[in-house]
Parts: sequence; structure tokens; C-alpha cells
Amino acid sequence: MLDAAEQGLTLTDRAYERQLRTLRPALLKAHFALQQSGRQVLVIVSGSDGAGKGELVHRLNEWLDPRGVTTTAFWDHSDEEDERPHFYRFWRAMPGAGKIGIFFGSWYTRPIIDRVTKSRRKRDFVPELDRIVAFEKMLADGGIHVLKLWLHLSKPAQRQRLKELERLGRLGPDDWKHFKQYDRFRTVSELALEHTHQPHAPWHPVDATDRRHREITAAKLLLATLEHAATLEAPKRRARAAAPAARTWVPGPSQLDQVDLTQRLTVSQYERELPQLQERLSRLAWRAREEKVPTILAFEGWDAAGKGSAIRRVTQALDPRLYRVVGIAAPTDEERAQHYLWRFWRHVPRDGRITIFDRTWYGRVLVERVEGFAPVADWDRAYFEIDAFERQLVDHGAALGKFWIHISPAEQLKRFKERQRVAWKRHKITDEDWRNRKKLPAYKAAVDEMLARCSPGEAPFTVVAGDDKRFARVQILRTIVERLEGALEAGA
Amino acid sequence: MLDAAEQGLTLTDRAYERQLRTLRPALLKAHFALQQSGRQVLVIVSGSDGAGKGELVHRLNEWLDPRGVTTTAFWDHSDEEDERPHFYRFWRAMPGAGKIGIFFGSWYTRPIIDRVTKSRRKRDFVPELDRIVAFEKMLADGGIHVLKLWLHLSKPAQRQRLKELERLGRLGPDDWKHFKQYDRFRTVSELALEHTHQPHAPWHPVDATDRRHREITAAKLLLATLEHAATLEAPKRRARAAAPAARTWVPGPSQLDQVDLTQRLTVSQYERELPQLQERLSRLAWRAREEKVPTILAFEGWDAAGKGSAIRRVTQALDPRLYRVVGIAAPTDEERAQHYLWRFWRHVPRDGRITIFDRTWYGRVLVERVEGFAPVADWDRAYFEIDAFERQLVDHGAALGKFWIHISPAEQLKRFKERQRVAWKRHKITDEDWRNRKKLPAYKAAVDEMLARCSPGEAPFTVVAGDDKRFARVQILRTIVERLEGALEAGA
Repeated sequence: MLDAAEQGLTLTDRAYERQLRTLRPALLKAHFALQQSGRQVLVIVSGSDGAGKGELVHRLNEWLDPRGVTTTAFWDHSDEEDERPHFYRFWRAMPGAGKIGIFFGSWYTRPIIDRVTKSRRKRDFVPELDRIVAFEKMLADGGIHVLKLWLHLSKPAQRQRLKELERLGRLGPDDWKHFKQYDRFRTVSELALEHTHQPHAPWHPVDATDRRHREITAAKLLLATLEHAATLEAPKRRARAAAPAARTWVPGPSQLDQVDLTQRLTVSQYERELPQLQERLSRLAWRAREEKVPTILAFEGWDAAGKGSAIRRVTQALDPRLYRVVGIAAPTDEERAQHYLWRFWRHVPRDGRITIFDRTWYGRVLVERVEGFAPVADWDRAYFEIDAFERQLVDHGAALGKFWIHISPAEQLKRFKERQRVAWKRHKITDEDWRNRKKLPAYKAAVDEMLARCSPGEAPFTVVAGDDKRFARVQILRTIVERLEGALEAGA
Repeated sequence: MLDAAEQGLTLTDRAYERQLRTLRPALLKAHFALQQSGRQVLVIVSGSDGAGKGELVHRLNEWLDPRGVTTTAFWDHSDEEDERPHFYRFWRAMPGAGKIGIFFGSWYTRPIIDRVTKSRRKRDFVPELDRIVAFEKMLADGGIHVLKLWLHLSKPAQRQRLKELERLGRLGPDDWKHFKQYDRFRTVSELALEHTHQPHAPWHPVDATDRRHREITAAKLLLATLEHAATLEAPKRRARAAAPAARTWVPGPSQLDQVDLTQRLTVSQYERELPQLQERLSRLAWRAREEKVPTILAFEGWDAAGKGSAIRRVTQALDPRLYRVVGIAAPTDEERAQHYLWRFWRHVPRDGRITIFDRTWYGRVLVERVEGFAPVADWDRAYFEIDAFERQLVDHGAALGKFWIHISPAEQLKRFKERQRVAWKRHKITDEDWRNRKKLPAYKAAVDEMLARCSPGEAPFTVVAGDDKRFARVQILRTIVERLEGALEAGA
């Protein structure tokens, strides 16, 4: 696909100026319409060395309203980014509603360079590209328009460009060395482009030989993207209006029904086991800090299942400098302006640290599904998106614990009544809890589907028998200890 | 003031348990009330080595609802923090509305340690403490309740504690060495505490000899703080209800009236000077990146004064990897949950980078003042708060440029009409612009007061003669170049 960008197309200065005269106001207008529409546009600028990527990024910024654009160069690492999964830095820089993000470098940079230098094995390369395809699909499904520009130079054009830079004294020390790898770089890039050239995020190879030609080409592509994004119907409404997607999921036997809720611990068992596990967890957490293993703990469960008190038994064991508890309630407006996974990514801990989520990204396939807050298409897709998210955490070396605390309806009723009776517990029970209780069958179907679909070997759900709080807490502590030991062992 | 905390007070296990039985539910209840009230509470835990600070922080976390608490240990530096003014890390960790922040270490840690080790001169110490007093006053005025705990050990108590730790094998390598400086540490701390013991943020020295005593003491203080914070009337409403504070400001002659708006540049002058200045700015920006000097540019001005187009002339000269333009409009809800300066602190650039603010923190004393969005007491105080904020930027070595672009009412009218006429400029003019125009005298008074009060030698305002856009742009570029050269020279 790079052949098409090797024709050495040029543009005269006059043609350039003439085209720009209409393009520039059109771009500004489209940018303004985008801001009104609340859609997000992401422009990826990649390509050959010396192809004028920096210059183009500069120009795009000049043509747009600078308040509505954020340019991020991923040359700029920070330890806060390096100590998190690879995609964290991209999520962090994601443009919000109505904004344009320009990425100078992207999730392609590292895989391609690694493959060129052979520090990534061939058989790992295509799976990585597949992950990128899935990631971009997820962005597109979430309403983020991705424009992928590849500024290409043919071998003779790059040689000439390097000579020019040499003459100007602006040649980098490794530029000629890199040039020797031109063919390999081209082959790897071509493969990457072909593989990730998808309808939802196609590549646009740009013949970069001539500055004027490449700028006008990019401007036109950007204009088309902005206009397309701004005039589309809002994705949510569209999805709501459409007939619910035909769902292919066939429920199997309920996992919840198989939980033995009669499991109990005596007080003396509990008072022996809990402190032992807490002691182990405490030591493991310090070891994880030393060995830079992050931990993510996700708590879900029925209302009154005892999430809060279980979390407390975990935090008791942890130095407060090591963990953070994040309660997930309604999103803030900054969160609403982003893809729904963004607000979880922003809390992903640095290496060696622990984030405990009290309610999680599973809200998408639980409350948002049952209450109809998200259209069918959105939550149905979320099973895959969540899987990809958790896989990134685990691939990064994180210990991941996911808990569904299960209690029987009878136990729940007992606890609701208890909460209403005890003065200082009264704030814990609301009308909504009673309403949710009436929707039990719908929630149960959602939970069972979640457990069946979101429990891969690397990131299994732990269904906790919660009718006995002592049993539940010990089960949770033990699971976390095992998960952390596993991650530490894998990292060692 | 530390004498009072050297009595070696203890508590029996029974008394401890008995008190805790009432304190714990009371704390939870008060924490819940705080969440409802939307007030912010900050707990600072400082004190002697070995006084059990970590243990206390742990305990506080245990007693509260973990979802409503964030503990931050400032041992955890990151390059993103180290490359910003000292207070950035504290702002970043500030609890939002309804939350409790526990700071393990604080803005006291570094000054005290530096003074003990004599790496900070005596004559710099008190001014630093004064800055802290002003900072805490600002937090208090902004509705943030600060509880300052100082866990104190007498010399014999600390000696005993270190021996204990030695026996347990938990002694740090420098602990005895530090102990030799006990007297000096005590003197410096005492001075710091005395000086910063203010009605709006008093110190609470806690006798830390006995674990049970110090925990109960801290719990009671925290409970009182939470209850006080939660039951207070919202500060804004209180201030609004009160009669406007008597203002002591006496306006002098108008600075705006003295601006020579007839200053002009010919096209040929402009086309010669602008590219020269841009070229210089471009080189300076790269040098600033290398020498790690950050730049903050603040743009204010009348509607249609040409802020946007002036900013564009600046960004044209800059590599997009080096700068970020932040447009200040209505705050997001995450911003509203914080002190009004928080949303500017979050955009303070890393060393070597540039943030351009299109509208700024001066909104407090301009639009918020004139439109009555902030009570008199709030915006009147802001002159001092802004001064302290900018001083921190400058003290950190930043280049700071502040611009008020001035145009005559006649020129403004001309531009408004032009905007209405030209199709793609129409979005730039709103009913609000016309409304603001009617309030010209009130805005003018506010601008003049701002210029008179917020233009100290280290952070002067530049009043730009804006009737001629060419003149204005060149004046702005030249000022930025000079400011950046100054900062680079000062840093060299």
C-alpha cells in the first residue's frame, strides 16, 4: 500500500496557496462544528524519518483553533507513564468531547521499531497488530474518529532528504545508520499498515516528498474527517433508535445458583485465619512495591453484600501509602466526555502500588445494561472491551483480583432491615436499593453472563460466598494473597 | 508549644477500647455528613521520627469510609512532580468536595529538614513559613479545613523508642544519627509550629509516647474537625448573605486611559519584525527545553481584542511538542469541587515546557467580580492569592508573561460588526459579547484595579496596545522573548 505514495507528487507554490485559501477557513469552520457536536477526533502522524512529520504537526496546529487541539509527543516519557501498562499514556492524552488530539507517534511506534530492530519476535508481531486493531475498533465504536496519516518517502526520496539535512547540518547521528535499514523498515511498516488498515480506521499513506503536496493532502483528509465526525448523529441516540442488536449469547447453567452459601467460618476460625492472611498480605504488598508489581482489585456484588467491610479487611493489612480506594459512582463531566473505560484507566496504579475499585468497569454490563443506561450494542460490545483492558493489566505484570460477592435474597432482606434499624447504618440503605431488589432476575441474568464471559484464565472472577461475612472476608483475603504471589512469581 | 506534649500521657487498654466504641461510629457518621456537605478536610500528619505517624495514618484509614479518603505520602516523588513548583504535588493531591485527604508529610517536611541540616539559611526560613501561613489561610478561606497533627516524642521517649526498634531489628541506618540532632530538630520544629500556629489552621501537638493515647487524641481531633466542617454553612452563601466587606482599595489614575492606542506598525515593519521575533522565540523555546525552564503565558483582554490571533502568532513559532494551549471557560465539575486555583495548577507545565492560557486565573477579579459570580470577600482576597500563585511559578524559575490586550470601545464595535458580517467569524460573536459591552465601566474599574495590584516586579502585566493588531502581536512576541531570555539568564 506504500507504492501509491511513491509517485513523487508535487504542488506548485501557487496551487498550494490557492487551495489553502479555501481549506483554512473550511478547517476552522469544521473544527468549530466539531466542538459543537461533542465528537472526538484523533489524528495520528507517523511515517518515515525525515518525512516532515514535525513540520506537518506544526502546520495542523496553525490551521486549527489552538484551544481545541492537544498535541502529544510520545517521545516525552515520564516515570508515571513508564510504570503503567503501555496504553496508559495514550488513554491519558485522549481528546475529550469536541476536541482534536494530534498524536506525534502512537501505539504503532514501539511495535514497528521493535520489529525492525528484531527486539520483538516475528510471531509476536501480528498478535500485537491484532490488539491494535481491536483497540482502534473500540475507539471507533466509542465515537472517536481516528485519522491515521503515514508520511512516506521512497528510498531515493529519503536519501535525498538526508543529504539535504546533512547540508543544513541538521542530520541526527544515527540517521544514515537507520537509512541502511530502509528496506526492512519499509517491509515491516507495509505489513503493519496492511494489517491495521480497517474500515473503522483506515490508513492514509501520504506521498511526503514535497512539502506542499503533503500538507494539502493532510489538510483535505483532516477536513473530511472533521466534517464527517461533526455531522454524524450522536452514536448513542443512533444505537438507541435502532432495533436492539440480535444477541448471540446463550445462557448456560447459572454459576450463582451453584455457590454454596451455607459455607461458614466460626468466630475462632476467623480470628485465627484473618490475621494470618492479613500478615501475609502486608508482607506481599511491600515485596510488590520493591519488585514493582502493581495490583488491581475489583469489587462487585449485590447491594449489602459487604463490599465495604470486605475492602476494609483488605486495607487494614496495607500501608496507606501503598493503596488507594476508588469508589465508582456516577461519572464526572470530564469522564462523560471520554470513552467509558477512560475513567478506569486514569486510576490504574503505578508499579508497586495498589488500586482497589469499589464497583468497577463491570457497571457497563450490570447496572448500565439492566437499567438501560447504555444501548444494547454498547454493553454487548463491552465484554470484549473489558477483556482487552484486563489483558493489558495482566500482560503488564499486574496482580488482578476480581470479586463478585454473592448473597441470597433472604440474607439481603435481613441486612436491608438491619440497616434501617441501626441509626448509623441508615445512610447505607436507599430507595434505590429496594428498587434494585425488585429487578433481581434481570440483574441475575446479567451477573451470570458476566461471570461466564469475563473470567478468562489470566483474569478469573472469584465468586465469593457472602452470606457469612467471616467466610467471605477470608475467601477474599486468601484469593488476593494467592493472586499477588502468582504475579510476584511470574515477575521474578 | 511542644512542652505540653511531653507529659508521657498513657491510656489503659480498657479505656482505649471503651472510648473507641463511641468514637468509631461517630467518626463514620461525621464522615458521611461531610460527604453530604461537600466540604473538604485535610489532615496533616507530621512529627518526630518513630512517633508512630505511619501507624496513625493507617488507623485513621481504618476508622473512616475508605472511599472518601485519599492518603498521599510525599515520599513518592515522580519526575512529573519534581519538574514543577514545590506546591504542585500538594495541589494535585488536594481532596475534592466531600472528601478527606490525609497527607503523610506535607509542605512542612522539606523546610524543616532543610533547616535542621542547614541547607536552608536562617533568614530564608521565616519567609518560607510566612508563605505557608498564607497558603493555609488561602485553603481555609476557600473552605478547606486543615487539621495539623504533630506527633511529638520527648528526648527520653524517642531514645526509648529507638532502642525498642533496635531490639525489633527495625531500626533505619540513620536513626541514631538523626537522634544526635534531636535538640536541633526540636528547636526548629518548635519555631515552625509557633510561627504557623494560626487561628485558621492551628497546630495540635500530640503526646505520642503511648500508642493508645495518641490514637484517641487524634481520633477526637478528627471527629471535631469533621463535625465542624460538615455543619458549617456553605462559605459562599454565608459570604453572599453578609454585607459586602468594606474594601480598602482606592483607585488611582486609570492605566488603561494612558495606553497610546494610536501606536501602529506598517505592513512592511510587521513583515520584517514578526518573523525575526518568531525565529528568536523558536530558538529560545528549544533552549528552555534543554535548560529546563518552564514558561507560562497568560492572555486576557477585551472581547474581540485579538487574543486568539495573537496566541496563534506565538504558537506558529513553537514546536507543538513544547506547548499546550489551555482555554479557560466554565469549570468542569471536578474543578468546581476544588479551590478555584486548582484548575490552573493542574495545567502548570513541566520544566522546559510552555502552557499558554487563553483567559486565566484573573477571571476571578474580572468576570467573576463584575458578574457577581463570586462574593466580594472571595474576589477581594484573590489579589493576594494570585500574587502568591505567580510568585511560586517565578521562584521555581519559570518565565511568566501576562498580557492584557487593550482596545478602544470604538475599535471593539467595529470588530463586533465585522464578525457579524463575515460568515465564518460569526461564531465568534455572541449575545454575551454585546451584554459585556454594556458593562464597560464596571469591567474597566476591575481591569484597572487588577493592573495596579497584580503587577509586581517579578510578574509584571503587559498592557498591549491592541487597536492595531500588527502592533499588538509584535509587542507580545517581543515581551515573551525578553521574559524568556530573562528567565534563562537567571537560571544559568
